[in-house]
Amino acid sequence: MTLEQLRSRVDELDRQLVALLNERAQTAKQIGQIKAASSMQVYVPGREKLVHENLRAANTGPLPDAELFHIYERILDVMRALQRNELASQKNAQAARDAQQGQPADARSSETGK
Amino acid sequence: MTLEQLRSRVDELDRQLVALLNERAQTAKQIGQIKAASSMQVYVPGREKLVHENLRAANTGPLPDAELFHIYERILDVMRALQRNELASQKNAQAARDAQQGQPADARSSETGK
Repeated sequence: MTLEQLRSRVDELDRQLVALLNERAQTAKQIGQIKAASSMQVYVPGREKLVHENLRAANTGPLPDAELFHIYERILDVMRALQRNELASQKNAQAARDAQQGQPADARSSETGK
Repeated sequence: MTLEQLRSRVDELDRQLVALLNERAQTAKQIGQIKAASSMQVYVPGREKLVHENLRAANTGPLPDAELFHIYERILDVMRALQRNELASQKNAQAARDAQQGQPADARSSETGK
C-alpha cells in the first residue's frame, strides 16, 4: 500500500474508534445514572481490575500491553470524569425537585424509605 | 439495562477498541517503514491537523471534542513511539547488512545513488 492509502486507512479506523469511544461514553453515563440512584462510588477498584484483565485477554498485538494500558489510562480517566458529571447533574436535578416541593434535600432518603 | 448488562456491553466495546487500536498500530508501523525508506520524519505537523479535523467531523458525542482530543493525544503519542521504534529497527537492520557486506553505513547513500 502507498502512504496515501495507509493514511486513508488510518482515517477510516479513527472514525470507527470515535464511534466506539462515544458508545463507551454513553454506556458509562448510563452506569453513572445507576450508581447515582444506588449511591455507589464512581471508582470501583475490583471492576478496574476486571477491565484490565479483559484488555489483556483481547490484546493480540502489535501493541504491547503496557502501551495499550497507557492509552486506556487516559480513556478511563475521561470516562470517570463523565460519570462524575452525570452523578453531579443527577444530584442537582434532585435538589431542584426537592426545592420545588419545598422539602430539604436531606429529607428525601427517609421519604423514599417509606 | 441492568448494571451487569451495561458492564458486559463495556467489555464488548473494549474488545472492539483493542482490535481497532491494534489495527491502527499495525498501519502506523507500515507508515513508519515507508517513512524510513524515504528518510521522512515521524512527526508531520500538517498530517496531525488533518487527523484532528477527521476526528472532529466524525464526533457526534456524547464525548465533547476536548475529551476526545485528550484521549487521542495519548493514542498519537503511543503511535509515534511505535513509528520511532520501527525507524530505529530499520536503521539497525540496514547497518547490520552494511557491516556484513564490509562497507560503512555512510557509504550506502552514495552507493544506492548509482
